[in-house]
Amino acid sequence: MNARPEPVGDMHAADHALAERLFAEIAAMTPDTEGVSRPAFSDIETRTLKYLEDFARSEGLEVWYDAGCNANFSLPGDREAERFAVIGSHVDSVPFGGNYDGLAGVVAGLVCLVRAHRMGQRFARPVHVLAMRGEESAWFGPCYIGSKALTGTLAGREMDARHKGDGRTLEAHMEQIGLPVDDIRAGKPLIDLDRIEAYLELHIEQGPLLVGKDIPAAVVSGIRGNIRYRSITCFGEAGHSGAVPKAYRRDPVLAMADLLVRLDESWTTILNKGDDLVLTSGVVATDPEKHAMSRIPDSVSFSLDIRSQKASTLDDMRELLESEMREIERDRKVRFETGEELRVEPALCDRDLVSGLEKAMVRTGLEPFIMPSGGGHDAAVFAGAGVPSAMVFVRNRNGSHNPQEAMEIDDFLAGVDILFAFLAERP
Amino acid sequence: MNARPEPVGDMHAADHALAERLFAEIAAMTPDTEGVSRPAFSDIETRTLKYLEDFARSEGLEVWYDAGCNANFSLPGDREAERFAVIGSHVDSVPFGGNYDGLAGVVAGLVCLVRAHRMGQRFARPVHVLAMRGEESAWFGPCYIGSKALTGTLAGREMDARHKGDGRTLEAHMEQIGLPVDDIRAGKPLIDLDRIEAYLELHIEQGPLLVGKDIPAAVVSGIRGNIRYRSITCFGEAGHSGAVPKAYRRDPVLAMADLLVRLDESWTTILNKGDDLVLTSGVVATDPEKHAMSRIPDSVSFSLDIRSQKASTLDDMRELLESEMREIERDRKVRFETGEELRVEPALCDRDLVSGLEKAMVRTGLEPFIMPSGGGHDAAVFAGAGVPSAMVFVRNRNGSHNPQEAMEIDDFLAGVDILFAFLAERP
Repeated sequence: MNARPEPVGDMHAADHALAERLFAEIAAMTPDTEGVSRPAFSDIETRTLKYLEDFARSEGLEVWYDAGCNANFSLPGDREAERFAVIGSHVDSVPFGGNYDGLAGVVAGLVCLVRAHRMGQRFARPVHVLAMRGEESAWFGPCYIGSKALTGTLAGREMDARHKGDGRTLEAHMEQIGLPVDDIRAGKPLIDLDRIEAYLELHIEQGPLLVGKDIPAAVVSGIRGNIRYRSITCFGEAGHSGAVPKAYRRDPVLAMADLLVRLDESWTTILNKGDDLVLTSGVVATDPEKHAMSRIPDSVSFSLDIRSQKASTLDDMRELLESEMREIERDRKVRFETGEELRVEPALCDRDLVSGLEKAMVRTGLEPFIMPSGGGHDAAVFAGAGVPSAMVFVRNRNGSHNPQEAMEIDDFLAGVDILFAFLAERP
Repeated sequence: MNARPEPVGDMHAADHALAERLFAEIAAMTPDTEGVSRPAFSDIETRTLKYLEDFARSEGLEVWYDAGCNANFSLPGDREAERFAVIGSHVDSVPFGGNYDGLAGVVAGLVCLVRAHRMGQRFARPVHVLAMRGEESAWFGPCYIGSKALTGTLAGREMDARHKGDGRTLEAHMEQIGLPVDDIRAGKPLIDLDRIEAYLELHIEQGPLLVGKDIPAAVVSGIRGNIRYRSITCFGEAGHSGAVPKAYRRDPVLAMADLLVRLDESWTTILNKGDDLVLTSGVVATDPEKHAMSRIPDSVSFSLDIRSQKASTLDDMRELLESEMREIERDRKVRFETGEELRVEPALCDRDLVSGLEKAMVRTGLEPFIMPSGGGHDAAVFAGAGVPSAMVFVRNRNGSHNPQEAMEIDDFLAGVDILFAFLAERP
């Protein structure tokens, strides 16, 4: 593990105990059969915010809810500041998820406020902490719902998306909690974005890079955009596995395999050119109602998730996907249907913020390290809405979205220290 | 449609009406929400045999059940013949299946007997018709269960296979119907195979060749053997779709696609060399409990069904599969587990019977046409047990194992005519 400054006596010991307590108590409130489940726009999410509210009040912080029903926190007197920085993240989780994806960013903000308050210190400029609802796409399909609603960028069709469990629309769930669904449909921002001079988010790294490089935390350069297809279906023709000669076949599984291998090869080419790309088919299935070992299936469905830091690389991949599908359709007499395409543009972090965080990282005693974010985050939504945004990543084993997420509290505090050092001494 | 002799007046009209009636009444007795379902070793199967028994008795035929609880039929006086030919097939179907796969062969045999009986004609040598149970693998996993039990070749582990619906073992189902499960486990043939001088089976073609070539019926040269894997699992490592760089990935879906494309390419090479091969992956699935669009899956499972008329081609493909898996494991840091391998050896039809059927085909006025069988059939089990065996295929649209099976009764009677002409005038 890289050198990290020793905790400054009592202060770090107190932060350590506080972070451990908050993570443990919230995990205990929101357990599932495995890991935690904090569904977007649910009562469990509401109770989580209420828990944070009670905690913050007990520490003497100001607490209020915005029109998106998200909890906000500040040092006494900073709520009404004309302009302020936001430390934000989300409290919801995926089903059977880990405890840190999202929650770490909220707890980081609160630890910064509590540390300053206990030390009787003010930040260089006012700071609000924002604990948001509904970032995970696992519940309704769309992602970053809470931050999109806040920034007036949630699409009407996203509000029509249905909950995977109860089948009710996102709009119905929002209305039940008290969100102003008409304003959201009209694309009205629910907060005054001009007052936010910077949006900062701490998040666990969702990949293995910081573990591989043995670095506790890092500053993020930008967030990969993506093109995603929930379900591409390849249609062929069913037949007896033994009785149809190759020349008569229209096999959708081999067509899908052909497509994936072609995309995989282009991926390597693009990386060799120095461009950024990741590509995943996470869901693959023949039809369980019809498939059999001795039957050529009539169709197969698969998801596709393509991400890059460069919009032009996404455009190139989209074009490549289209042309490869057309070629395979001709060669193999099959037909691809891509269904809805979801697209999120890449978001660059604000240069000044990145540079400020990098300097803050040095002040905490760490070697500066800057890396891209593979996962999308609420920070990308704020950046897209014109708010200068930046992120800090914390080393974490076993990826995210699973109960095995493993962030060390010491690494978490290394990330908190970067944020705190930045906010305390900004010009 | 190729020239076929016009029906010989009343006889063919009567056969046509009889075949239509038997098919229609049995379909009406064994319907499912779509198509027909006649489960192996079920009450529905027993009722189907009873229906055939009642019909045969009403026509003055002899009827009896063998120790395998299959129905047997003959002209009066032929039951006790020292040696005889068997026209056999099965009455069970796959779930939501078509009416003709299996049943057509049984009805063909009965039409031959009824035609001879009504005309007061004897066959050149005695003929038994055998209506068997349990050929379809869809119910328990193993295939040709009925004919394997009869010939003493059903494996003990096949008797332990569990029914897909009720979870009870094949042995329990057999015992309930009254089959001698101890004899079957001991590998004792349930009938005297030495008395069977020829096994003949009419079956719908399960592929598109006769439709493509516009031929009503054909003589079969041999039956493809197969190597099958119900579920090969490729294990990789789960991760966030956006956050794990390519170099850190162990993606099982791309590994599976790579394997299937390699096998597909080798398939083409083998065909170009003039060898026989078909290859199918009919069941493909990531884990529905865990998979998600934005998650690299930790595993994917897929079936593999490889068939050829040549045992050495099956051996070559098995070796190729093994070496490609090992190479992909090294390249992509994944691991394949193949699970149980099922193997059925190719079966050549008896030369003399094929030549006799070919001559009979010419006598019925058709151009002779000989083709391989892609699907396995009970005939392969009899051939494997040393009984000279042969088959006749009938043109059929839309493949088999589905409610859209479409055999024309005129084509069926063309096949029956080939069998009848052969049996009537054998040397």
